[in-house]
Amino acid sequence: MKLFRFGAFEQEKPGVELSDGKSLDVSGFGEDFNEQFFATDGLSRLQEWLKENQADCPILEKGFRYGSCVARPSKIVCVGMNYAKHAYESGATELPKEPIIFFKATSALCGPFDNVVIPRGSEKTDWEVELAVVIGKRASYVSEEDALSYVAGYAIHNDYSERAYQLERGGQWVKGKSNDTFAPIGPYLVPASDVANPNQLDLWLSLNGKKIQDSNTSDMIFQIPFLVSYLSQFMSLLPGDVITTGTPAGVGLGMKPQVYLKPGDIVELGIEGLGVQRQEAQAWKA
Amino acid sequence: MKLFRFGAFEQEKPGVELSDGKSLDVSGFGEDFNEQFFATDGLSRLQEWLKENQADCPILEKGFRYGSCVARPSKIVCVGMNYAKHAYESGATELPKEPIIFFKATSALCGPFDNVVIPRGSEKTDWEVELAVVIGKRASYVSEEDALSYVAGYAIHNDYSERAYQLERGGQWVKGKSNDTFAPIGPYLVPASDVANPNQLDLWLSLNGKKIQDSNTSDMIFQIPFLVSYLSQFMSLLPGDVITTGTPAGVGLGMKPQVYLKPGDIVELGIEGLGVQRQEAQAWKA
Repeated sequence: MKLFRFGAFEQEKPGVELSDGKSLDVSGFGEDFNEQFFATDGLSRLQEWLKENQADCPILEKGFRYGSCVARPSKIVCVGMNYAKHAYESGATELPKEPIIFFKATSALCGPFDNVVIPRGSEKTDWEVELAVVIGKRASYVSEEDALSYVAGYAIHNDYSERAYQLERGGQWVKGKSNDTFAPIGPYLVPASDVANPNQLDLWLSLNGKKIQDSNTSDMIFQIPFLVSYLSQFMSLLPGDVITTGTPAGVGLGMKPQVYLKPGDIVELGIEGLGVQRQEAQAWKA
Repeated sequence: MKLFRFGAFEQEKPGVELSDGKSLDVSGFGEDFNEQFFATDGLSRLQEWLKENQADCPILEKGFRYGSCVARPSKIVCVGMNYAKHAYESGATELPKEPIIFFKATSALCGPFDNVVIPRGSEKTDWEVELAVVIGKRASYVSEEDALSYVAGYAIHNDYSERAYQLERGGQWVKGKSNDTFAPIGPYLVPASDVANPNQLDLWLSLNGKKIQDSNTSDMIFQIPFLVSYLSQFMSLLPGDVITTGTPAGVGLGMKPQVYLKPGDIVELGIEGLGVQRQEAQAWKA
């Protein structure tokens, strides 16, 4: 079972894709995939509910819009420079000794096939394929050993980044991470029980058909159990919160010469078992 | 009219303090002071509703707990080093040319008189009195001239900061800003229409009865209209979002020798026209 959300932006309804590929509208379950859903073991309850009600769920025809696979969370916590080659391509002279953390505004959330809007005046909009971890229950001071029991599931995230805003405008990275449409998450939330090892997944990204990021989550410097435990020392992770675990080498910032998005560019990305995303870059319009 | 929220943590109800000092339970209005409330001009609707229903609202006896004066927002956007003396006491060698932005986890939100919990193992928990700006309607690419029309009101915020986490643990400041209880906001949300000039307000903080921060919001390097406009270039500010505008000199980090909170310490702070806060520092307990 894969979870998704469908329909108009910010009016998404919950859906489920079955193992036979059928997509069901599960609005009848009466809940969105939000903090409350995860906090009350919604994944198990939804599975139970489906046993009784699957036959009554409308089947969705192809062509619907996918929204973010999770409703707006309390926070999107980002891990920076968590793949060695990417750290070096970004200009680091040594690898981080502890995870670098920053946030992305949750107002940046969008669907996996929505256009990415190049901010007004932006010249350095860049891509970053990342594995997103969705938290299943409140986590505060959890141990590395227990950490994975706090994870509800996994999804693809393209951590769009405006490099001038991030690196040349004074201060902290959040400034280049938070524009609208900079956080496509989905199409699927794949429950943790269906992912054998989240630190053993191929991930890739292509620009206009050419593969430019190509790695495996086993290359992370800080792996997922460590990250969940580490973060929970500095903040309470709430059900539905998203941790995005860093990107491998191959971003525009690291190219010589640097390459950034222009209107009409096509970005496609995927992670093994989690599906694919595709965004077209679009100029900002008032 | 001042807005507040009262009752148990995360179960707060809305209240209103009248000009005669009476505190009313306005649960009957049927809305919390959240994104939806602000997005639909809740302040005006509440005032209209009170004209008809004030006599039926229960009067609250003293002794109730104040929660955060706003429900959990989509984001708490923090402005760093926005008072010159504070920038220098924090080790800056020059003033920021553009606002420094970072986020604070919204899970840190708490009431203005709740204990501040010193994180497990923390040795450098510090205080920062700040003027918080609450956004009234979605703001994206707004001009400085129009910016104040996007503000619903103002409140006090103590931007608690763990300096070792913020500055010595690698990377971005959010790591030292986000522990639970690090964001007491309130007691009141004072509507913008009741604040003649938000950049002309005295603000102060005392530790164990000794005043150690004492300034005026006119000392901000970047003033509120500029901040709202500036931030809206990098992200959409949503109704109910909080912008916290930086702290003046007098934090523990800037003292020689540095001073940080110990269990039992009493922090009191206030801003002209917005009330006072008081927190007792408490050791972390499992």
